[in-house]
Amino acid sequence: MENKGRKVPEVVIRRLPRYYRYLAELDRSGKTRISSNALSEKMGVTASQIRQDFNYFGGFGQQGYGYNVKSLLKEISQIFGINDGYKAIIVGAGHLGHALANYSGIQKRGFSIVGVFDIDKKKIGQDYNGITVRDMSEAEAFIKENDIDIAILTLPKNAIGEVADKLVEYGIKGLWNFAYVELKTKKPVPIENVHLTDSLMTLSFKIKQKSE
Amino acid sequence: MENKGRKVPEVVIRRLPRYYRYLAELDRSGKTRISSNALSEKMGVTASQIRQDFNYFGGFGQQGYGYNVKSLLKEISQIFGINDGYKAIIVGAGHLGHALANYSGIQKRGFSIVGVFDIDKKKIGQDYNGITVRDMSEAEAFIKENDIDIAILTLPKNAIGEVADKLVEYGIKGLWNFAYVELKTKKPVPIENVHLTDSLMTLSFKIKQKSE
Repeated sequence: MENKGRKVPEVVIRRLPRYYRYLAELDRSGKTRISSNALSEKMGVTASQIRQDFNYFGGFGQQGYGYNVKSLLKEISQIFGINDGYKAIIVGAGHLGHALANYSGIQKRGFSIVGVFDIDKKKIGQDYNGITVRDMSEAEAFIKENDIDIAILTLPKNAIGEVADKLVEYGIKGLWNFAYVELKTKKPVPIENVHLTDSLMTLSFKIKQKSE
Repeated sequence: MENKGRKVPEVVIRRLPRYYRYLAELDRSGKTRISSNALSEKMGVTASQIRQDFNYFGGFGQQGYGYNVKSLLKEISQIFGINDGYKAIIVGAGHLGHALANYSGIQKRGFSIVGVFDIDKKKIGQDYNGITVRDMSEAEAFIKENDIDIAILTLPKNAIGEVADKLVEYGIKGLWNFAYVELKTKKPVPIENVHLTDSLMTLSFKIKQKSE
Protein backbone atom coordinates (compact mmCIF):
# COMPACT_ATOMS: atom_id res chain seq x y z
CA MET A 1 0.00 0.00 0.00
CA GLU A 2 1.40 3.33 -1.01
CA ASN A 3 0.82 6.43 0.94
CA LYS A 4 -0.23 8.83 -1.78
CA GLY A 5 2.12 11.45 -0.41
CA ARG A 6 -0.60 13.87 0.64
CA LYS A 7 -0.28 15.15 4.16
CA VAL A 8 -2.71 13.17 6.28
CA PRO A 9 -4.75 15.44 8.57
CA GLU A 10 -4.34 14.84 12.30
CA VAL A 11 -8.06 14.16 12.68
CA VAL A 12 -7.84 11.28 10.18
CA ILE A 13 -4.80 9.81 11.94
CA ARG A 14 -6.75 9.92 15.18
CA ARG A 15 -9.71 8.08 13.71
CA LEU A 16 -7.72 5.15 12.35
CA PRO A 17 -6.87 3.51 15.70
CA ARG A 18 -10.61 3.42 16.41
CA TYR A 19 -11.25 1.66 13.10
CA TYR A 20 -8.41 -0.68 13.96
CA ARG A 21 -9.87 -1.48 17.36
CA TYR A 22 -13.28 -2.26 15.95
CA LEU A 23 -11.89 -4.33 13.08
CA ALA A 24 -9.74 -6.33 15.52
CA GLU A 25 -12.93 -7.09 17.48
CA LEU A 26 -14.69 -8.22 14.30
CA ASP A 27 -11.70 -10.36 13.38
CA ARG A 28 -11.65 -12.04 16.80
CA SER A 29 -15.36 -12.80 16.48
CA GLY A 30 -14.73 -14.48 13.13
CA LYS A 31 -16.23 -11.86 10.79
CA THR A 32 -14.37 -11.65 7.49
CA ARG A 33 -16.00 -8.65 5.87
CA ILE A 34 -18.00 -5.57 6.72
CA SER A 35 -20.08 -3.25 4.59
CA SER A 36 -19.19 0.37 4.40
CA ASN A 37 -22.56 1.21 5.99
CA ALA A 38 -22.12 -1.14 8.93
CA LEU A 39 -18.64 0.22 9.61
CA SER A 40 -20.05 3.73 9.37
CA GLU A 41 -22.85 3.02 11.82
CA LYS A 42 -20.54 1.42 14.37
CA MET A 43 -17.98 4.22 14.18
CA GLY A 44 -20.49 7.07 14.20
CA VAL A 45 -18.85 8.45 11.07
CA THR A 46 -20.55 8.71 7.66
CA ALA A 47 -19.70 6.08 5.03
CA SER A 48 -18.40 8.82 2.77
CA GLN A 49 -16.15 10.05 5.58
CA ILE A 50 -14.73 6.55 5.97
CA ARG A 51 -14.05 6.34 2.23
CA GLN A 52 -12.38 9.75 2.35
CA ASP A 53 -10.25 8.71 5.31
CA PHE A 54 -9.07 5.54 3.63
CA ASN A 55 -8.44 7.37 0.36
CA TYR A 56 -5.50 9.13 1.97
CA PHE A 57 -3.80 5.76 1.94
CA GLY A 58 -4.97 4.58 -1.44
CA GLY A 59 -8.47 3.40 -0.43
CA PHE A 60 -9.15 -0.22 0.40
CA GLY A 61 -12.87 -0.73 -0.22
CA GLN A 62 -14.51 -2.57 -3.06
CA GLN A 63 -17.77 -1.41 -4.58
CA GLY A 64 -20.58 -3.77 -3.58
CA TYR A 65 -18.38 -5.88 -1.33
CA GLY A 66 -17.42 -3.54 1.45
CA TYR A 67 -14.22 -4.08 3.36
CA ASN A 68 -12.26 -7.25 3.96
CA VAL A 69 -11.58 -7.23 7.70
CA LYS A 70 -8.20 -8.97 7.69
CA SER A 71 -6.71 -7.01 4.81
CA LEU A 72 -7.99 -3.72 6.25
CA LEU A 73 -6.36 -4.59 9.59
CA LYS A 74 -3.14 -5.38 7.77
CA GLU A 75 -3.18 -2.13 5.83
CA ILE A 76 -3.80 -0.06 8.97
CA SER A 77 -1.03 -1.96 10.76
CA GLN A 78 1.36 -1.06 7.96
CA ILE A 79 0.29 2.57 7.91
CA PHE A 80 0.97 2.82 11.62
CA GLY A 81 4.25 0.96 11.54
CA ILE A 82 2.79 -1.63 13.87
CA ASN A 83 4.79 -4.39 12.27
CA ASP A 84 7.98 -2.36 12.27
CA GLY A 85 8.92 -3.55 15.75
CA TYR A 86 9.48 -0.20 17.37
CA LYS A 87 11.45 -0.50 20.61
CA ALA A 88 10.59 1.56 23.65
CA ILE A 89 12.01 2.37 27.05
CA ILE A 90 10.14 3.67 30.08
CA VAL A 91 11.71 6.62 31.86
CA GLY A 92 10.33 6.93 35.38
CA ALA A 93 9.81 3.74 37.35
CA GLY A 94 6.95 4.97 39.56
CA HIS A 95 3.51 3.36 39.74
CA LEU A 96 2.50 4.43 36.25
CA GLY A 97 5.81 3.28 34.75
CA HIS A 98 5.33 -0.03 36.50
CA ALA A 99 1.77 -0.33 35.17
CA LEU A 100 2.86 0.43 31.61
CA ALA A 101 5.68 -2.14 31.80
CA ASN A 102 2.92 -4.65 32.55
CA TYR A 103 0.39 -3.33 30.05
CA SER A 104 -0.15 -6.03 27.47
CA GLY A 105 -1.83 -3.63 25.04
CA ILE A 106 1.54 -2.13 24.16
CA GLN A 107 3.04 -5.47 23.16
CA LYS A 108 -0.14 -6.48 21.33
CA ARG A 109 0.19 -3.41 19.13
CA GLY A 110 3.68 -4.62 18.14
CA PHE A 111 5.81 -2.39 20.34
CA SER A 112 8.33 -3.88 22.71
CA ILE A 113 9.42 -2.35 25.98
CA VAL A 114 13.04 -3.29 26.48
CA GLY A 115 14.21 -1.03 29.29
CA VAL A 116 13.06 0.89 32.37
CA PHE A 117 15.08 3.74 33.88
CA ASP A 118 14.98 5.82 37.03
CA ILE A 119 17.30 7.86 39.24
CA ASP A 120 15.86 6.48 42.49
CA LYS A 121 18.34 4.01 44.03
CA LYS A 122 15.44 2.17 45.69
CA LYS A 123 13.89 1.40 42.31
CA ILE A 124 17.07 0.56 40.42
CA GLY A 125 17.53 -3.21 40.27
CA GLN A 126 13.84 -4.02 40.74
CA ASP A 127 12.13 -6.32 38.27
CA TYR A 128 9.27 -4.83 36.23
CA ASN A 129 7.62 -7.58 34.23
CA GLY A 130 10.97 -9.21 33.46
CA ILE A 131 12.84 -5.95 32.90
CA THR A 132 15.42 -4.77 35.41
CA VAL A 133 15.13 -1.09 36.33
CA ARG A 134 18.40 0.63 35.40
CA ASP A 135 20.13 3.77 36.54
CA MET A 136 19.30 6.76 34.35
CA SER A 137 23.02 7.30 33.82
CA GLU A 138 23.04 4.16 31.67
CA ALA A 139 20.32 5.47 29.34
CA GLU A 140 22.59 7.03 26.73
CA ALA A 141 24.61 3.89 26.08
CA PHE A 142 21.49 1.71 26.21
CA ILE A 143 19.59 3.82 23.67
CA LYS A 144 22.51 3.91 21.26
CA GLU A 145 23.39 0.22 21.54
CA ASN A 146 19.81 -1.01 21.27
CA ASP A 147 18.54 1.47 18.72
CA ILE A 148 15.62 2.56 20.86
CA ASP A 149 12.85 4.41 19.01
CA ILE A 150 10.40 5.55 21.66
CA ALA A 151 10.72 6.85 25.22
CA ILE A 152 7.66 6.56 27.46
CA LEU A 153 7.89 9.40 29.96
CA THR A 154 6.34 8.70 33.34
CA LEU A 155 8.40 11.04 35.46
CA PRO A 156 7.43 14.20 37.36
CA LYS A 157 6.73 17.21 35.19
CA ASN A 158 9.37 19.47 36.73
CA ALA A 159 12.14 17.13 35.58
CA ILE A 160 10.72 16.28 32.21
CA GLY A 161 11.90 19.03 29.85
CA GLU A 162 15.59 18.47 30.48
CA VAL A 163 15.31 14.69 30.39
CA ALA A 164 13.33 14.76 27.13
CA ASP A 165 15.95 16.94 25.41
CA LYS A 166 18.70 14.54 26.46
CA LEU A 167 16.81 11.47 25.27
CA VAL A 168 16.33 13.05 21.84
CA GLU A 169 20.03 13.89 21.77
CA TYR A 170 20.77 10.21 22.47
CA GLY A 171 18.71 9.17 19.44
CA ILE A 172 15.11 8.75 20.64
CA LYS A 173 12.73 9.34 17.69
CA GLY A 174 9.45 9.93 19.50
CA LEU A 175 8.10 10.61 22.98
CA TRP A 176 4.99 9.27 24.67
CA ASN A 177 4.49 11.71 27.51
CA PHE A 178 2.29 11.08 30.57
CA ALA A 179 3.31 14.17 32.56
CA TYR A 180 0.84 17.02 32.89
CA VAL A 181 2.63 19.38 30.48
CA GLU A 182 2.46 20.08 26.77
CA LEU A 183 5.95 18.77 26.18
CA LYS A 184 8.18 20.31 23.54
CA THR A 185 11.81 19.45 22.85
CA LYS A 186 14.57 21.70 21.51
CA LYS A 187 15.10 19.39 18.57
CA PRO A 188 11.57 18.62 17.41
CA VAL A 189 10.46 14.97 17.39
CA PRO A 190 6.94 13.52 17.30
CA ILE A 191 5.40 13.74 20.77
CA GLU A 192 2.10 12.34 22.00
CA ASN A 193 0.92 13.78 25.26
CA VAL A 194 -1.45 11.58 27.27
CA HIS A 195 -3.39 13.76 29.65
CA LEU A 196 -5.44 11.31 31.64
CA THR A 197 -7.23 13.93 33.67
CA ASP A 198 -8.55 15.66 30.53
CA SER A 199 -10.85 12.75 29.92
CA LEU A 200 -11.80 12.60 33.59
CA MET A 201 -12.78 16.28 33.36
CA THR A 202 -14.87 15.51 30.28
CA LEU A 203 -16.60 12.70 32.15
CA SER A 204 -17.27 15.00 35.07
CA PHE A 205 -18.75 17.59 32.71
CA LYS A 206 -21.10 15.06 31.20
CA ILE A 207 -22.25 13.80 34.60
CA LYS A 208 -22.83 17.35 35.78
CA GLN A 209 -24.73 18.29 32.64
CA LYS A 210 -26.96 15.24 32.96
CA SER A 211 -27.83 15.95 36.58
CA GLU A 212 -28.74 19.61 36.01
CA MET B 1 -21.87 31.53 35.47
CA GLU B 2 -24.92 30.22 33.72
CA ASN B 3 -24.76 27.61 31.07
CA LYS B 4 -26.89 29.20 28.38
CA GLY B 5 -28.68 25.94 27.83
CA ARG B 6 -27.36 25.34 24.33
CA LYS B 7 -25.93 21.89 23.80
CA VAL B 8 -22.17 22.18 23.99
CA PRO B 9 -20.45 20.34 21.11
CA GLU B 10 -18.14 17.50 22.12
CA VAL B 11 -15.20 19.19 20.38
CA VAL B 12 -15.59 22.27 22.60
CA ILE B 13 -15.81 20.15 25.74
CA ARG B 14 -12.60 18.45 24.69
CA ARG B 15 -10.77 21.73 24.21
CA LEU B 16 -11.60 23.16 27.62
CA PRO B 17 -9.32 20.86 29.67
CA ARG B 18 -6.42 22.04 27.49
CA TYR B 19 -7.29 25.66 28.22
CA TYR B 20 -7.53 24.72 31.87
CA ARG B 21 -4.10 23.05 31.84
CA TYR B 22 -2.45 26.05 30.26
CA LEU B 23 -4.19 28.54 32.51
CA ALA B 24 -3.16 26.53 35.58
CA GLU B 25 0.44 26.77 34.36
CA LEU B 26 0.12 30.54 33.93
CA ASP B 27 -1.42 30.83 37.37
CA ARG B 28 1.43 28.86 38.97
CA SER B 29 3.96 31.12 37.25
CA GLY B 30 2.23 34.17 38.73
CA LYS B 31 0.56 35.57 35.56
CA THR B 32 -2.77 37.19 36.31
CA ARG B 33 -4.08 37.89 32.82
CA ILE B 34 -3.64 36.81 29.24
CA SER B 35 -4.65 38.44 25.99
CA SER B 36 -6.99 36.64 23.68
CA ASN B 37 -4.20 36.54 21.06
CA ALA B 38 -1.60 35.04 23.38
CA LEU B 39 -4.04 32.37 24.52
CA SER B 40 -4.86 31.67 20.88
CA GLU B 41 -1.22 31.32 19.89
CA LYS B 42 -0.41 28.98 22.74
CA MET B 43 -3.44 26.78 22.13
CA GLY B 44 -3.09 26.66 18.36
CA VAL B 45 -6.72 27.77 18.07
CA THR B 46 -7.84 31.10 16.58
CA ALA B 47 -8.81 33.92 18.95
CA SER B 48 -12.30 33.92 17.45
CA GLN B 49 -12.57 30.16 18.07
CA ILE B 50 -11.66 30.72 21.72
CA ARG B 51 -14.31 33.42 22.02
CA GLN B 52 -16.84 31.11 20.40
CA ASP B 53 -15.92 28.27 22.75
CA PHE B 54 -16.28 30.42 25.83
CA ASN B 55 -19.53 31.90 24.54
CA TYR B 56 -21.22 28.57 25.10
CA PHE B 57 -20.82 29.27 28.78
CA GLY B 58 -21.64 32.96 28.70
CA GLY B 59 -18.23 34.24 27.57
CA PHE B 60 -15.64 35.45 30.04
CA GLY B 61 -13.41 37.85 28.10
CA GLN B 62 -13.30 41.61 28.33
CA GLN B 63 -12.65 43.77 25.28
CA GLY B 64 -9.15 45.26 25.46
CA TYR B 65 -8.24 43.41 28.67
CA GLY B 66 -8.19 39.79 27.63
CA TYR B 67 -8.83 37.11 30.16
CA ASN B 68 -8.30 37.10 33.89
CA VAL B 69 -6.43 33.87 34.59
CA LYS B 70 -7.83 33.10 38.02
CA SER B 71 -11.43 33.82 37.18
CA LEU B 72 -11.21 31.86 33.93
CA LEU B 73 -9.80 28.89 35.87
CA LYS B 74 -12.63 29.19 38.35
CA GLU B 75 -15.27 29.33 35.61
CA ILE B 76 -13.86 26.27 33.87
CA SER B 77 -13.69 24.44 37.20
CA GLN B 78 -17.36 25.16 37.75
CA ILE B 79 -18.33 24.11 34.26
CA PHE B 80 -16.59 20.79 34.75
CA GLY B 81 -17.92 20.20 38.24
CA ILE B 82 -14.37 20.15 39.53
CA ASN B 83 -15.42 21.68 42.80
CA ASP B 84 -18.39 19.38 43.17
CA GLY B 85 -16.32 16.74 44.97
CA TYR B 86 -17.20 13.77 42.81
CA LYS B 87 -16.33 10.50 44.51
CA ALA B 88 -14.80 7.62 42.60
CA ILE B 89 -13.99 3.97 43.11
CA ILE B 90 -11.47 1.89 41.17
CA VAL B 91 -12.71 -1.48 39.98
CA GLY B 92 -9.78 -3.74 39.14
CA ALA B 93 -6.78 -3.68 41.50
CA GLY B 94 -4.13 -4.64 38.94
CA HIS B 95 -1.07 -2.54 38.09
CA LEU B 96 -3.07 0.18 36.35
CA GLY B 97 -5.62 0.35 39.17
CA HIS B 98 -2.73 0.64 41.62
CA ALA B 99 -1.12 3.40 39.56
CA LEU B 100 -4.38 5.37 39.34
CA ALA B 101 -4.93 5.07 43.10
CA ASN B 102 -1.56 6.80 43.43
CA TYR B 103 -2.08 9.32 40.63
CA SER B 104 -2.11 12.77 42.21
CA GLY B 105 -3.61 14.36 39.09
CA ILE B 106 -6.99 12.89 39.94
CA GLN B 107 -7.11 14.45 43.42
CA LYS B 108 -5.72 17.73 42.09
CA ARG B 109 -8.67 17.98 39.72
CA GLY B 110 -10.97 17.70 42.75
CA PHE B 111 -12.01 14.07 42.48
CA SER B 112 -11.50 11.73 45.38
CA ILE B 113 -10.86 8.02 45.13
CA VAL B 114 -12.48 6.41 48.13
CA GLY B 115 -12.50 2.71 47.31
CA VAL B 116 -10.71 0.00 45.34
CA PHE B 117 -12.35 -3.33 44.46
CA ASP B 118 -11.27 -6.65 43.02
CA ILE B 119 -12.31 -10.30 43.02
CA ASP B 120 -8.74 -11.59 43.49
CA LYS B 121 -8.29 -12.84 47.07
CA LYS B 122 -4.55 -12.02 46.86
CA LYS B 123 -5.30 -8.36 46.23
CA ILE B 124 -8.17 -7.95 48.70
CA GLY B 125 -6.86 -6.42 51.93
CA GLN B 126 -3.82 -4.77 50.32
CA ASP B 127 -3.23 -1.08 50.87
CA TYR B 128 -3.31 1.15 47.78
CA ASN B 129 -2.24 4.64 48.76
CA GLY B 130 -4.15 4.44 52.02
CA ILE B 131 -7.18 2.64 50.60
CA THR B 132 -7.82 -1.00 51.47
CA VAL B 133 -8.71 -3.17 48.47
CA ARG B 134 -12.16 -4.66 49.07
CA ASP B 135 -13.98 -7.68 47.76
CA MET B 136 -16.14 -6.89 44.75
CA SER B 137 -19.10 -8.39 46.58
CA GLU B 138 -19.05 -5.35 48.89
CA ALA B 139 -19.31 -2.88 46.00
CA GLU B 140 -23.09 -2.54 45.96
CA ALA B 141 -23.37 -1.59 49.63
CA PHE B 142 -20.32 0.66 49.42
CA ILE B 143 -21.60 2.59 46.40
CA LYS B 144 -25.03 3.13 47.93
CA GLU B 145 -23.77 4.09 51.40
CA ASN B 146 -21.08 6.43 50.15
CA ASP B 147 -22.95 7.94 47.21
CA ILE B 148 -20.23 7.10 44.71
CA ASP B 149 -20.42 8.99 41.41
CA ILE B 150 -17.70 7.52 39.21
CA ALA B 151 -16.27 4.04 38.67
CA ILE B 152 -12.79 3.80 37.18
CA LEU B 153 -12.66 0.52 35.29
CA THR B 154 -9.25 -1.12 35.15
CA LEU B 155 -10.32 -4.71 34.75
CA PRO B 156 -9.94 -7.13 31.84
CA LYS B 157 -12.16 -6.40 28.87
CA ASN B 158 -13.93 -9.78 28.86
CA ALA B 159 -15.39 -9.11 32.31
CA ILE B 160 -16.18 -5.48 31.85
CA GLY B 161 -19.63 -5.37 30.23
CA GLU B 162 -21.37 -7.26 32.98
CA VAL B 163 -19.56 -5.43 35.77
CA ALA B 164 -20.32 -2.04 34.23
CA ASP B 165 -24.05 -2.80 34.01
CA LYS B 166 -24.11 -3.83 37.67
CA LEU B 167 -22.25 -0.72 38.80
CA VAL B 168 -24.77 1.49 37.01
CA GLU B 169 -27.58 -0.47 38.63
CA TYR B 170 -25.96 0.22 42.04
CA GLY B 171 -26.04 3.96 41.33
CA ILE B 172 -22.79 4.84 39.53
CA LYS B 173 -23.37 7.95 37.37
CA GLY B 174 -20.38 7.76 35.03
CA LEU B 175 -17.67 5.35 33.94
CA TRP B 176 -14.01 6.02 33.20
CA ASN B 177 -13.02 2.97 31.20
CA PHE B 178 -9.43 1.83 30.57
CA ALA B 179 -10.22 -1.51 28.94
CA TYR B 180 -9.70 -1.90 25.22
CA VAL B 181 -13.40 -1.83 24.28
CA GLU B 182 -15.90 0.86 23.35
CA LEU B 183 -17.95 0.30 26.46
CA LYS B 184 -21.70 0.70 26.43
CA THR B 185 -24.09 -0.03 29.27
CA LYS B 186 -27.71 -1.20 29.14
CA LYS B 187 -28.84 1.86 31.05
CA PRO B 188 -26.93 4.70 29.38
CA VAL B 189 -24.60 6.78 31.55
CA PRO B 190 -21.73 9.05 30.51
CA ILE B 191 -18.68 6.95 29.65
CA GLU B 192 -15.18 8.08 28.81
CA ASN B 193 -13.03 5.42 27.20
CA VAL B 194 -9.27 5.88 27.61
CA HIS B 195 -7.52 3.93 24.90
CA LEU B 196 -3.87 4.36 25.72
CA THR B 197 -2.64 2.44 22.72
CA ASP B 198 -4.51 4.73 20.30
CA SER B 199 -2.09 7.51 21.10
CA LEU B 200 0.86 5.12 20.92
CA MET B 201 -0.32 4.15 17.42
CA THR B 202 -0.52 7.82 16.48
CA LEU B 203 3.01 8.35 17.75
CA SER B 204 4.21 5.38 15.77
CA PHE B 205 2.55 6.75 12.63
CA LYS B 206 4.28 10.10 13.04
CA ILE B 207 7.68 8.49 13.60
CA LYS B 208 7.19 6.29 10.56
CA GLN B 209 6.05 9.19 8.39
CA LYS B 210 9.05 11.27 9.42
CA SER B 211 11.53 8.52 8.61
CA GLU B 212 10.12 7.78 5.15
